[in-house]
Amino acid sequence: MQVQSFISIAQQFKAVFLDSYGVLKNYNGLIEGVQHTIDILRSKKVTIRILTNDASRSQLQQAESFYSLGLHNIHESEIITSGMMAKQFLEQKIRDGKIAYLGTENSAHYILQSGLEHIPVSDVDLKRLDDISAFVFLDDEGFDWNTDINKTVNLLRHKNLPVIVANSDKFYPVSKNDVAVATGGIAKLVENMLNKKFIHFGKPDSQMFMYAYDQLSTIGNYGKQEILMVGDTLHTDILGGNKFGVKTTLVLSGNTSAEDAELQINATGIIPDYVCESIIS
Amino acid sequence: MQVQSFISIAQQFKAVFLDSYGVLKNYNGLIEGVQHTIDILRSKKVTIRILTNDASRSQLQQAESFYSLGLHNIHESEIITSGMMAKQFLEQKIRDGKIAYLGTENSAHYILQSGLEHIPVSDVDLKRLDDISAFVFLDDEGFDWNTDINKTVNLLRHKNLPVIVANSDKFYPVSKNDVAVATGGIAKLVENMLNKKFIHFGKPDSQMFMYAYDQLSTIGNYGKQEILMVGDTLHTDILGGNKFGVKTTLVLSGNTSAEDAELQINATGIIPDYVCESIIS
Amino acid sequence: MQVQSFISIAQQFKAVFLDSYGVLKNYNGLIEGVQHTIDILRSKKVTIRILTNDASRSQLQQAESFYSLGLHNIHESEIITSGMMAKQFLEQKIRDGKIAYLGTENSAHYILQSGLEHIPVSDVDLKRLDDISAFVFLDDEGFDWNTDINKTVNLLRHKNLPVIVANSDKFYPVSKNDVAVATGGIAKLVENMLNKKFIHFGKPDSQMFMYAYDQLSTIGNYGKQEILMVGDTLHTDILGGNKFGVKTTLVLSGNTSAEDAELQINATGIIPDYVCESIIS
Amino acid sequence: MQVQSFISIAQQFKAVFLDSYGVLKNYNGLIEGVQHTIDILRSKKVTIRILTNDASRSQLQQAESFYSLGLHNIHESEIITSGMMAKQFLEQKIRDGKIAYLGTENSAHYILQSGLEHIPVSDVDLKRLDDISAFVFLDDEGFDWNTDINKTVNLLRHKNLPVIVANSDKFYPVSKNDVAVATGGIAKLVENMLNKKFIHFGKPDSQMFMYAYDQLSTIGNYGKQEILMVGDTLHTDILGGNKFGVKTTLVLSGNTSAEDAELQINATGIIPDYVCESIIS
Repeated sequence: MQVQSFISIAQQFKAVFLDSYGVLKNYNGLIEGVQHTIDILRSKKVTIRILTNDASRSQLQQAESFYSLGLHNIHESEIITSGMMAKQFLEQKIRDGKIAYLGTENSAHYILQSGLEHIPVSDVDLKRLDDISAFVFLDDEGFDWNTDINKTVNLLRHKNLPVIVANSDKFYPVSKNDVAVATGGIAKLVENMLNKKFIHFGKPDSQMFMYAYDQLSTIGNYGKQEILMVGDTLHTDILGGNKFGVKTTLVLSGNTSAEDAELQINATGIIPDYVCESIIS
Repeated sequence: MQVQSFISIAQQFKAVFLDSYGVLKNYNGLIEGVQHTIDILRSKKVTIRILTNDASRSQLQQAESFYSLGLHNIHESEIITSGMMAKQFLEQKIRDGKIAYLGTENSAHYILQSGLEHIPVSDVDLKRLDDISAFVFLDDEGFDWNTDINKTVNLLRHKNLPVIVANSDKFYPVSKNDVAVATGGIAKLVENMLNKKFIHFGKPDSQMFMYAYDQLSTIGNYGKQEILMVGDTLHTDILGGNKFGVKTTLVLSGNTSAEDAELQINATGIIPDYVCESIIS
Repeated sequence: MQVQSFISIAQQFKAVFLDSYGVLKNYNGLIEGVQHTIDILRSKKVTIRILTNDASRSQLQQAESFYSLGLHNIHESEIITSGMMAKQFLEQKIRDGKIAYLGTENSAHYILQSGLEHIPVSDVDLKRLDDISAFVFLDDEGFDWNTDINKTVNLLRHKNLPVIVANSDKFYPVSKNDVAVATGGIAKLVENMLNKKFIHFGKPDSQMFMYAYDQLSTIGNYGKQEILMVGDTLHTDILGGNKFGVKTTLVLSGNTSAEDAELQINATGIIPDYVCESIIS
Repeated sequence: MQVQSFISIAQQFKAVFLDSYGVLKNYNGLIEGVQHTIDILRSKKVTIRILTNDASRSQLQQAESFYSLGLHNIHESEIITSGMMAKQFLEQKIRDGKIAYLGTENSAHYILQSGLEHIPVSDVDLKRLDDISAFVFLDDEGFDWNTDINKTVNLLRHKNLPVIVANSDKFYPVSKNDVAVATGGIAKLVENMLNKKFIHFGKPDSQMFMYAYDQLSTIGNYGKQEILMVGDTLHTDILGGNKFGVKTTLVLSGNTSAEDAELQINATGIIPDYVCESIIS
């Protein structure tokens, strides 16, 4: 496994898709040097998109968060979230009724603004489910795990609904050594209880790649060979990029450590085109 | 699928193994008529054992609970719990250090009285794991789900330990229509996060059957053909009994409803020798 | 579950995506009446695309096969196969070496014509794997199952390669009552042996939908709401269509029988927008 | 991970349970030095039992095979196979009809000599399944994989039967570097096609341990603490031994190599009490 310089690789591409967590930022805030790399890419006219499995905040909120962390030139339109994909699905497929959810009021406000009413699972009356038309796993916060996960299990046992998981990540890092169970992990628990598979959004699925790619086609002519996907996780960023048909770079600044990378690549058979320490050099 | 009379079947056996929940009791308390059936079996000299996937209470506590519900002649020695199997395992395999757990203080007191210290996960210092020698999932109560499940995930990421699931049931009924996530469901979530398989105790595994069978051999001569396992759940009670080699009866008074039974039997290929409405007639 | 007339539904859409097996044809040949429906859709200016999980034949071969079965006006360009997606992936990601495969010579010829050499697994020398750069599961025919599946397992144990499954279907019907294990089923066996996940192509993944959708955009302006996906299998056609965001119709002329449909919809939570007996009325 | 001398450990136990493949023999024949170790254990009055996931040969055939390989003092009664467990199950649970099977005539003759007729799947008439009462996966040889695996899938789709997997191992070694798909691997393929779980026999399940333990109790007084299970595979030998409550030794002379051992122990959480190079020193 050869570890290469990111900046020299990235310059060869017309567009770079970047994962957010583990690539641009980590539990400490912005990864030092990231602004510099972004600036170089901008100066080389490399188009940038950020593809993040996150359904807790809107594009604007995410851009503001980057700004407050010190990354100053990311425009909200450059950010594509798994939440946007879930939102799109709900708008296209759910036509009436209320959408029940597990997550924060903020995530619900952002994802479920489709003209349909939304209701946190804690407010649902299990005896009156007639008007509930879909269920969405939005976030791991904003509810009582014990009470509301159990209530979700029972809601979904009582009524057959389309169930959407707006971010299929199982966990996210909260410090150098520790993680927390994410929305996708909670959804998996409920899937396991019900013996069902829900509709998951987010990498490695193709939707976010497709969305970004379609968007690029409105501003220029980009072949898949001219796009580089960069991420810290083999089975989301790299598998998704490989499958979509773009080139892929694994960075070692997040979920996958330098010691583990070769082992994991061999174990999973998910092979990035490049491996880089981080995006900062 | 022929539904038969339990009492006439059970009399043909020298011993009957009964699941507790869904067979003897339900969310309402004792199933009406159960005392009468037990009395008939006693009068016919049928040996009774209760095999329950439960790690929250000792044999004595379980016997007292039956008594307080109105079932008066169950002796604590007739009750075999998955918790006892976990306890036995820990006594035989874990020789020093502290056993960390997720569950109630009562369940810990009962299961972990092996001379070793035990410590709830909430009191564990993730930075000082040297003396933690095993981890046990005991109960779905007695802790804060959000905080302590996340802490458990991190504890088990930081240190490789034998992990025991003292009751592998995924859920248990709390009312006519509703269930709650049980210890086994929470353990599954953590297994899924870590991509590991823990050591599970409880039906369908053979240990409880084996324990009951060994016990019978001390009081008489029982062939496996002379033993009937009775339960309300195909993939625990019936699969376990089938695999252990005893005859099996599915009752429709618990997890498996009359409408679902045939479908589930066909879907799973787990075929009970008999199907009865309940044990009361 | 309301069963509706396909023709009256389909006319409301600008484009209809049709699965092949179970919708247009079955083990007997063409489903009677299918030509008539296609003619009506053509006369109503509904654009037609056929999306099939098949990697054994080229678009032209598939069009010729429809012709020989009696369906006369399907143009090869209207057919999108999972094999095309695999082909595209290989062209974009594999740059040198030989591609080893399990399948027929015909499927290899079609899928692997990317300038790279291809070699059936039976001809691979397990001691000289240096120049093998990828592995593809193409078809369930064209090789000796015992010898060549075992050889595939060992090849993939000896060398870490990108592994592509060109058709992820587990089985296909061979008569009214019988099925045969398909490429995806064989790939699953090998995945299970190696404890790895390969890169699967075909519905329910978004690529074929995306490809068809992109193609439509070159001939007109089609919103996702104006597209109807029609298939006989919930977890490929309907799940894929739902996730891509188009409307979906389950037909009962193939894998899913009228008796099973409601049960399976409830069991899986994959809910089609419409259910029709078949596409012929 | 401390690698210890097997002989000095084994002498501390009253009984030693040995896996066969990877412990006593390998693809080359008998592992050199094994006879010497057995002789030492005999001289120290350590009781020996061989626990093997094998359903292809009877105890006598296995003992003869050890003899012909040069291991001269293993008595057939000291050998316990997963096939014996399957045989016992069939005798106790299947009372009439014919038992269909996938495997060699020899394995069928040995396992299915229960007074019931047995029939290879190739001879079954799929249109006349009335008298088929059970199905057994016996061996990976003795049939045409393509034809007969497909026929098995269809047989089990047409009729709901108890299905027994007499050896749940997924693969077995055929040379230093190569393996072959075993009965359990083929059964997994069929389970995956049908979305069902069959009844599996063999380690890590407790039955073989229990059988050996019960047998010991007829010749002396053996506590579980006085028994050592020795094997080369974490998730069968060591998990099974741990769960049954005996001490466990992982040897590095078979499936688990010295380089992989620590990694696999950490990855699986299946922790042997001892690790030894092999049993020969």
